[in-house]
Amino acid sequence: MLRSHTCGELRSSDINKQITLSGWVQTSRNLGGMTFIDLRDRYGITQLAFNLDWNKELSEQANKVGREFVLQITGTVIERQSKNKNNPTGDVEIKVESLKILNEAITPPFTIEDETDGGDELRMKYRYLDLRRTIVRKNLELRHRLAMEIRTYLDKQNFLEVETPVLIKSTPEGARDFVVPSRMNEGQFYALPQSPQTFKQLLMVSGFDRYYQIVKCFRDEDLRADRQPEFTQIDCEMSFVEQEDILQTFEGLVRHLFKTVKDIDIPTLPRMSYADAMKYYGNDKPDTRFEMKFVELNDIVKGKEFKVFNDAKLVVGICAKGAAEYSRKQLDELTEFVKRPQIGATGLVYARFNNDGTIKSSVDKFYTEEDLKKWTTIFNAQPGDLILILAGDEDKTRKALSELRLEMGTRLGLRDKNKFSCLWVVDFPLLEWNEGDPNLLASLAGRWHAKHHPFTSPKPEDIHLLKTNPGAIRANAYDIVINGVEIGGGSIRIFNKDLQSQMFEVLGFTKEEAQKQFGFLMNAFEFGAPPHGGIALGFDRLCSMFGGADSIRDFIAFPKNNSGRDVMIDSPSEISAEQLKELGIKL
Amino acid sequence: MLRSHTCGELRSSDINKQITLSGWVQTSRNLGGMTFIDLRDRYGITQLAFNLDWNKELSEQANKVGREFVLQITGTVIERQSKNKNNPTGDVEIKVESLKILNEAITPPFTIEDETDGGDELRMKYRYLDLRRTIVRKNLELRHRLAMEIRTYLDKQNFLEVETPVLIKSTPEGARDFVVPSRMNEGQFYALPQSPQTFKQLLMVSGFDRYYQIVKCFRDEDLRADRQPEFTQIDCEMSFVEQEDILQTFEGLVRHLFKTVKDIDIPTLPRMSYADAMKYYGNDKPDTRFEMKFVELNDIVKGKEFKVFNDAKLVVGICAKGAAEYSRKQLDELTEFVKRPQIGATGLVYARFNNDGTIKSSVDKFYTEEDLKKWTTIFNAQPGDLILILAGDEDKTRKALSELRLEMGTRLGLRDKNKFSCLWVVDFPLLEWNEGDPNLLASLAGRWHAKHHPFTSPKPEDIHLLKTNPGAIRANAYDIVINGVEIGGGSIRIFNKDLQSQMFEVLGFTKEEAQKQFGFLMNAFEFGAPPHGGIALGFDRLCSMFGGADSIRDFIAFPKNNSGRDVMIDSPSEISAEQLKELGIKL
Repeated sequence: MLRSHTCGELRSSDINKQITLSGWVQTSRNLGGMTFIDLRDRYGITQLAFNLDWNKELSEQANKVGREFVLQITGTVIERQSKNKNNPTGDVEIKVESLKILNEAITPPFTIEDETDGGDELRMKYRYLDLRRTIVRKNLELRHRLAMEIRTYLDKQNFLEVETPVLIKSTPEGARDFVVPSRMNEGQFYALPQSPQTFKQLLMVSGFDRYYQIVKCFRDEDLRADRQPEFTQIDCEMSFVEQEDILQTFEGLVRHLFKTVKDIDIPTLPRMSYADAMKYYGNDKPDTRFEMKFVELNDIVKGKEFKVFNDAKLVVGICAKGAAEYSRKQLDELTEFVKRPQIGATGLVYARFNNDGTIKSSVDKFYTEEDLKKWTTIFNAQPGDLILILAGDEDKTRKALSELRLEMGTRLGLRDKNKFSCLWVVDFPLLEWNEGDPNLLASLAGRWHAKHHPFTSPKPEDIHLLKTNPGAIRANAYDIVINGVEIGGGSIRIFNKDLQSQMFEVLGFTKEEAQKQFGFLMNAFEFGAPPHGGIALGFDRLCSMFGGADSIRDFIAFPKNNSGRDVMIDSPSEISAEQLKELGIKL
Repeated sequence: MLRSHTCGELRSSDINKQITLSGWVQTSRNLGGMTFIDLRDRYGITQLAFNLDWNKELSEQANKVGREFVLQITGTVIERQSKNKNNPTGDVEIKVESLKILNEAITPPFTIEDETDGGDELRMKYRYLDLRRTIVRKNLELRHRLAMEIRTYLDKQNFLEVETPVLIKSTPEGARDFVVPSRMNEGQFYALPQSPQTFKQLLMVSGFDRYYQIVKCFRDEDLRADRQPEFTQIDCEMSFVEQEDILQTFEGLVRHLFKTVKDIDIPTLPRMSYADAMKYYGNDKPDTRFEMKFVELNDIVKGKEFKVFNDAKLVVGICAKGAAEYSRKQLDELTEFVKRPQIGATGLVYARFNNDGTIKSSVDKFYTEEDLKKWTTIFNAQPGDLILILAGDEDKTRKALSELRLEMGTRLGLRDKNKFSCLWVVDFPLLEWNEGDPNLLASLAGRWHAKHHPFTSPKPEDIHLLKTNPGAIRANAYDIVINGVEIGGGSIRIFNKDLQSQMFEVLGFTKEEAQKQFGFLMNAFEFGAPPHGGIALGFDRLCSMFGGADSIRDFIAFPKNNSGRDVMIDSPSEISAEQLKELGIKL
């Protein structure tokens, strides 16, 4: 070992010990007679001291090393004159007796500090230097710790970790697959899994009872912000369970993680139906760190002179506590916010419930003080509150108001990253109509699409709607939501061949297509499949949530950019004609 | 939960409890008045009892369920009349009070028993049924346990688990890459990693200090027996270490696994140089469960009338203890064995050292009793031993004798699966000449090829041979070998840009090719790379070793066959014209 100790472990109790350290030069200060070098490794920083009087040659050598040089030194631990209480090793320093440069370093393109001067692009190109920054490394240490605790919990609950294959078969009913040409089976392709869904179900048919895997999955999407073509999933499945068992088990996991990793006690998770989530938050992943629930106003605002409200399918608003004093400028900002194309509202109506009890609205000419009083009542508003109202088509308006609600939550400081509000959203619809989703193959447009996936069980009491009103069928499906982020989702699965076959029919598969793509699973159901269900949690997202960050990118060691490129290794890239020929493909 | 207990947990202490069980029908016996069903789940088997006198209808229902039906029953735990000491639940049975068929089952294509009547092909097609067999499931439970213990050990040793990307860049200097066409970057390809080698080295440059990952790797080879296109590796890297530190750390891992998983104390691992392994065992992964070392005979057999020995570059033999009484037939079998094309010896010379002290050889007409006495002395043979000798070209003869030695080890019962002999083989050559390896691109033939990989450090004292005699350079590389199987290998890495660049030159890369494929790594070395090294252990192989099996296939949940096909899901398969078009590729 090129060291006797790490740079993070020496203390006063080590004084007078002969030690050897190895690490990187964080900073170097030449004070004339004395030179100090901060030597850094993963475990901490230790100060090295050189003195012309102790050893002239060594001091001169020390003055020549630059930032990020890799050194090995031996010396004696001594007490430090001016102690640094902010550094665990700050009571001591090393009187260096020999120094070896293990490797030199050219000047890094950005500073290796928590606050760096490197922009995103530069940081990604030199990701190996970016990862040297303590703040980034800590994110990955957190990820390591979470993975360990997940496994500990699931192992104790009798889950077996089983690796499922990465080279599988293309089943393009979900998002697009990444495919892999087979050299040994020319003209044929493997696909990379979007999830190990069918394999984990087969493991249940096999009697594995409880399965888990922390596993890479792949989706060839037009990348939205903060999506990665490869991502990591905590994938789980259980047999002989009902929805309640799964909610209990994974609520247990989440609470275990908060307790062991962040020492936070999370209360029992509330349950909210999908219908309520949409009604009160306009969102199937509501941020419940704050209330500000939607209030529908159709009944009390219609029938006056205000055409916008009269023509709207839905008039709906929120009450922002204590925001009545918002200035004209702030209100204009909010109006601009909701009118942005990605939000798409046509305008914003407000009513200030002033501290003096008066009410001032942007639609005063259409509504009397009496009318507005009714508004404050239905919103349960207090003097000092601000009512914000949108109107228009049902779905679009809810979506826009959800964005406005989140914006107001942020502006009012209600979205504290160190506060965690978890809940289950349940009773999702089984299907949704695909108008032409750019992340699906064009040939799938104009069909029903499985909201969760085609293996999700409809609620038994809704099965009769399969042929008559598929859109109304509710699924035994659930999402776990933390702070407005969908951390995971799952469902109770179909375990009967006939029902699975009907499901594929509703999704527009011919019998032949269904058999060709999923015959192995439907056949397996004939040999005694147990009732089963499961869940998958987004591990990248969970890590960033625990790390208090918005982006997943800094919780992935080597992420890709928004074009799916790894700019560090410059991938994807061309391959040789020889390779193409062997694979039997042409460009 | 559809059960109150599993089928493996009820004991005498549970008698009189009301319970609910769910599981599969293992067997059903109708004895007239009584019917017994063995109900199976992952945890065990519990006997269910039905009696016409207790409940006629229920008994009749029980008589109708078939093998592998999925049942849920409720009943009372009662004492069993004839206890089954071979089953942990064998003291009790369930007096069933209600029975629900959760799912029916058609007759499986083979019996779900430890000894099955299903052939390999059928088992793979219905792998989900094969996995129901306790013996196969136990293999995967062992795999789970090993993975947990590996992580526990490495976590305690401060290793950080870091996930490296799966979509990387093609660098076809090793085996062939699997590639993935990029839709968003048309004409370009990702590659699947043959190992996370460059990424783990970058993590060392980043100061991660100790990295590990249990990770899928991919190699597009013409599959030999018991190789899989995707396989799992325990991948590790450490900074500020020398070879000795790595050997100690991973010797520790292997001993920890044997102790915790099999309760076996493994002694300190001996070290053997590659040169000695070849000299004494003709093999760089010697099976050291037994001795039977090679003895070279050139000095004492040449110069007589026996042309075969006189013309041979090498005459070398082994002494099989206690095999002097081998019959003519047995000796003929051995001769046939070494003459098989894949072994390729031209003949076998033997000398029996009979119990009466006489020596009888197959070359008596060329060698006197006196000559043969010398043989027995050099082999340190005792009366009752059999000397077996091969002659010919140096490499081929050693290889053939290695096969014969293993065959004799097997025949003499010296290769007990429950005995484990571990060792390190060290000082491998850095390079080997590629005559035209079918697992490499044809364009790489007639070049030096890195024996371990191009990042392996030559021994400092041998570096001067890089330009003059590359084949003689020894590497700081090591393999861990258990019972004649290479379980893992690693090396101390190059961490200097110039040396890495020279290495690529020796391997026949132009400066441009090296920069294009590995520029990111060589550039990283300029920013302060620490001395580092690592190892990768084959996890599939390790599991099969611990499970006492020869094949890795039953330690992988869903393996592929020798043509790289998953016959269960029928993959690889064709993809649609729409998919091909989007990817911009043609067949």
